[in-house]
Amino acid sequence: MNDRFLRACRREPVDCTPVWFMRQAGRYLPEYQEVRAGHGILEVCKTPALAVEVTLQPVRRFAVDAAIIFADILLPLEPMGLQLSFAAGEGPLIANPVRTAADVAALGAVRPGDDLGFVLEAIGQARSALAGEVPLIGFAGAPFTLASYAVEGGGSRNYVETKRLMYNDPEAWHALMGRLADAVAGFLLAQIAAGAQAVQLFDSWVGALSPDDYAEYAHPYTQRIFAALAGRGVPRIHFGTGATTLLPLMATGCDVVGLDWRVPLDEGWESVGHDTAIQGNLDPVVLFAPEAEIERRVLDVVKRADGRPGHIFNLGHGILPGTPPAAVGFVADLVHRATRRSP
Amino acid sequence: MNDRFLRACRREPVDCTPVWFMRQAGRYLPEYQEVRAGHGILEVCKTPALAVEVTLQPVRRFAVDAAIIFADILLPLEPMGLQLSFAAGEGPLIANPVRTAADVAALGAVRPGDDLGFVLEAIGQARSALAGEVPLIGFAGAPFTLASYAVEGGGSRNYVETKRLMYNDPEAWHALMGRLADAVAGFLLAQIAAGAQAVQLFDSWVGALSPDDYAEYAHPYTQRIFAALAGRGVPRIHFGTGATTLLPLMATGCDVVGLDWRVPLDEGWESVGHDTAIQGNLDPVVLFAPEAEIERRVLDVVKRADGRPGHIFNLGHGILPGTPPAAVGFVADLVHRATRRSP
Repeated sequence: MNDRFLRACRREPVDCTPVWFMRQAGRYLPEYQEVRAGHGILEVCKTPALAVEVTLQPVRRFAVDAAIIFADILLPLEPMGLQLSFAAGEGPLIANPVRTAADVAALGAVRPGDDLGFVLEAIGQARSALAGEVPLIGFAGAPFTLASYAVEGGGSRNYVETKRLMYNDPEAWHALMGRLADAVAGFLLAQIAAGAQAVQLFDSWVGALSPDDYAEYAHPYTQRIFAALAGRGVPRIHFGTGATTLLPLMATGCDVVGLDWRVPLDEGWESVGHDTAIQGNLDPVVLFAPEAEIERRVLDVVKRADGRPGHIFNLGHGILPGTPPAAVGFVADLVHRATRRSP
Repeated sequence: MNDRFLRACRREPVDCTPVWFMRQAGRYLPEYQEVRAGHGILEVCKTPALAVEVTLQPVRRFAVDAAIIFADILLPLEPMGLQLSFAAGEGPLIANPVRTAADVAALGAVRPGDDLGFVLEAIGQARSALAGEVPLIGFAGAPFTLASYAVEGGGSRNYVETKRLMYNDPEAWHALMGRLADAVAGFLLAQIAAGAQAVQLFDSWVGALSPDDYAEYAHPYTQRIFAALAGRGVPRIHFGTGATTLLPLMATGCDVVGLDWRVPLDEGWESVGHDTAIQGNLDPVVLFAPEAEIERRVLDVVKRADGRPGHIFNLGHGILPGTPPAAVGFVADLVHRATRRSP
């Protein structure tokens, strides 16, 4: 098996720097669009054969060193009682957002096997289909990011409702975060049991918080999740964007921290600490640049990693719709070529 | 005249910390909504009597230490040839976005007196109406933020078109930024001639850039503007959001750096350098919290300023629609009370 991704998560020496891409299975791929032409995103998530198909698409096309199961971070909100939909061309919508202590109290618990069995089944099938070619990553949204969707009822720019709940009814906020943390911890444990060989916690929007708010209102819950996953030999990756000032706290309890492009990789790694592996951090929009420019920037990221064990090459956020697929393959190959160690 | 704002910009001792609020004239004020009920936002900007009226509204209501002329950062794009509109309840839209070198070459120059005379006239009238009560701030959008609207055709989440132009046709990008910098420098000089006693450059979306991209594609143009404004005794304030890693560069050439809430004020000031004044940095959503919570957080900001001359209290971004006006007054009074020095 190609295990350089897992080895890098553990900061062990590797033959060359592993690479995968957030949203490597996604709209930029024509074969993904073909699948999606006939099926909504939730339908793909809930149909293991389709989820496995799109999970494998980038592995077939590119020299990526990991697959990530195709799913959506908001899936656990449905069994909790939230009505989730995706309008065409729009982001997610939640028809009954959580705004009060009573709304929080009414949320159900998640039984991963019953409620999210389709993800677990897809993980098992993907593992079989991958046949050890590359490891399979499971994932979930972190409590703050899930809460932001649950409270706002969709995406947000200013997170007014989310922070309003946090500041005006901290008890309800903590109850909500506790429920989300329990749901996520259980879901990730079930993903590991089903075959996920690493897990990534996506706290994509946590950069909206000040460091003090993060420490008080979000950090305890990522810690609860990481503690539940400890001791299983499965690397725990923690990712956020716009979170430069949160990095030292985000690094606690996990094995790998994902950086966005707002912080140079060497400075980000310094602030995370070199006893934690690092993932990142090319600006996804660089994939729209000419090859020479992509190359210059990929080599800069690689140089900042300085040959230290524990770097996993990735973007600083997911691949964007419209990205030329050839650019993705170019980066994967370049990372391998540029970092190849003599045996 | 109450000159504690101007004194703080120059890092001179003050009787208490000055305070004003970005978007202090805005939708959260019923008297502003009354004016806007009959007039579109561009109409208010272009009618000096209306612009002056909304400029003065927060000065009448609250103990703010500065007024800021009511205008929109996108106004200079119109005389450059861009078709600007504001759909009801939506952000700005530009019907003919700039995407190519030819589009850039077709942009006109801005003659502030002819093209933006309404802003200059409003500044003169506002100065008279204020009669020295508090100083008047002029402002403009910084080239990157203006370019992002011009290229995207409106607001953006990922700035794909903006960066695509930057990465694929750097020559066109630099030409665009040069034209914007010249337009902004001329406009701000004209605002100063018309009576603006300080000027703020809003680079609200610059946090989308990596530090290297900022240094190469944006920083030279803010420097050109600040250099054009030098030696006039008018403080130059430089503001961005999500820009923690850009702060050392943003501090060059200006007198005051505005921080958002993502960096604690003491750490942000440290990274800017104590030879530059600092403005900020309460999270605007805190104004939706109960008074006790607002108080705790305001006092934390004040404490982090540590009594050092050169702190101007502000939010970390503009006041949000829906903000309770009473919270704004509460913060202004509290900042004064909590920082009052014995004479």
